[in-house]
Amino acid sequence: MQQKADLEDFIRNGHKYFVPHVSLDCAIFGYHERQLKLLLIKHRAINGWCLPGGYIKRTEKLVEAAARNVKERTGVDNLFLQQFKTFGDPNRVKFESFDEQQWFEATGVRFGKDNWLIDQTISIGFYAITNFSKTVLHVDVMTEKCEWFDIDALPELEFDHDEMVREALHTMRIQLYHYPIGYNMLPEKFTLTEIHALYETLLGKKLDISNFPKKLIALGLLKKLDEKRRIGAHRSPYLYSFDKEQYDKALREGVVLS
Amino acid sequence: MQQKADLEDFIRNGHKYFVPHVSLDCAIFGYHERQLKLLLIKHRAINGWCLPGGYIKRTEKLVEAAARNVKERTGVDNLFLQQFKTFGDPNRVKFESFDEQQWFEATGVRFGKDNWLIDQTISIGFYAITNFSKTVLHVDVMTEKCEWFDIDALPELEFDHDEMVREALHTMRIQLYHYPIGYNMLPEKFTLTEIHALYETLLGKKLDISNFPKKLIALGLLKKLDEKRRIGAHRSPYLYSFDKEQYDKALREGVVLS
Repeated sequence: MQQKADLEDFIRNGHKYFVPHVSLDCAIFGYHERQLKLLLIKHRAINGWCLPGGYIKRTEKLVEAAARNVKERTGVDNLFLQQFKTFGDPNRVKFESFDEQQWFEATGVRFGKDNWLIDQTISIGFYAITNFSKTVLHVDVMTEKCEWFDIDALPELEFDHDEMVREALHTMRIQLYHYPIGYNMLPEKFTLTEIHALYETLLGKKLDISNFPKKLIALGLLKKLDEKRRIGAHRSPYLYSFDKEQYDKALREGVVLS
Repeated sequence: MQQKADLEDFIRNGHKYFVPHVSLDCAIFGYHERQLKLLLIKHRAINGWCLPGGYIKRTEKLVEAAARNVKERTGVDNLFLQQFKTFGDPNRVKFESFDEQQWFEATGVRFGKDNWLIDQTISIGFYAITNFSKTVLHVDVMTEKCEWFDIDALPELEFDHDEMVREALHTMRIQLYHYPIGYNMLPEKFTLTEIHALYETLLGKKLDISNFPKKLIALGLLKKLDEKRRIGAHRSPYLYSFDKEQYDKALREGVVLS
């Protein structure tokens, strides 16, 4: 949303185009070379940081709405997007830190009384994992900042978003045992050390070296190439790549990786 | 809801007491002695079978709303209730098989135009597992029947409820690897054969005999009692019970059972 006229229409009439009382929020995790980050935004006229989110068009599937939101923020398409939980505590969103005058000065648009955006809203949480080094972040007329934060140095978040992040991490870590991961996050050809580092970073703990890659190979998800990477005089580990067909099948059906 | 006056008020004014545009549906699985069943209801004036569901009071947490709905149907309290997915395809609910005249004859209440109940609605899916032999089923003024169906002989369901059941089963089977199960579904003291049968039935497949119980013991969730059950002259297996403290901790935090 780039224009004031669009924003005005969204604030006044959004409930006609979007399903009211329901929003979505996305925990977008970014991985690159053993670092795990989380994307946060700062809304205009709200002091703290939040997960990026949005509303569901009346013509959209939920996952399409989530994909649109993620693409608007990061420029990234075709991401692995997974619902993790829906949040609906009656008092989950309070607008205590919302400064309407400051919002008006920044946007030129007034909320008005009984606006659909400040009615009780249930939010559907999605998580995604992407390579943060390949994203191009966007702010729009409603947001002031959009930044990657190290997962171990997150600020305290607004609303119930701290709980959302905890639940997203918990679900992502359980799902690592049942769905393949790594496509788009590793180079096309990679070493076992690299995929092992990916799993360790996402799980946030040291792993027995053989664990996940060994299972991935046994299940036919990972194939050994007849090619090595030359690291040093005495180190040239074999390269591996994903079997995309098996990978997509496992994404649809689930597996047991542990 | 037992009275016509309550129903009239619900149809007219429900959006003031409940969050509109959002409902919940519950896949209530029932286990007893190697049988797995699913609870289905038949609404008045709709031909087919559905999952039981309802709406979320504006003062309720989502899980409280689900627990209230499950209790109203089954009489069972304090059930293990787990969100599995939220469903929101734009055309997920069509009222093609809804016969308004038949509804009016059965209930004495008219829907009227633009009713909040037939607006676009996103539904939050919960699953529960209980012992079907201990439930007492209820129908109310809006429903005609409420019955347990064998999981392998389900009828084709209305709306998107076939997909809901598939997703509920899929999630339940993945979560069996990460959360303990069995409390309230097995006797207080049980044999390894009994808990093994529970896992086989829920997973819908034969298992290596030692798998799950062995891990449950290793994690301290299951404790061997100094007591045997006398089955026959040469068969008296040891009895086991759950360590409730460890069990509740594992329910909160998750484990890796496979």
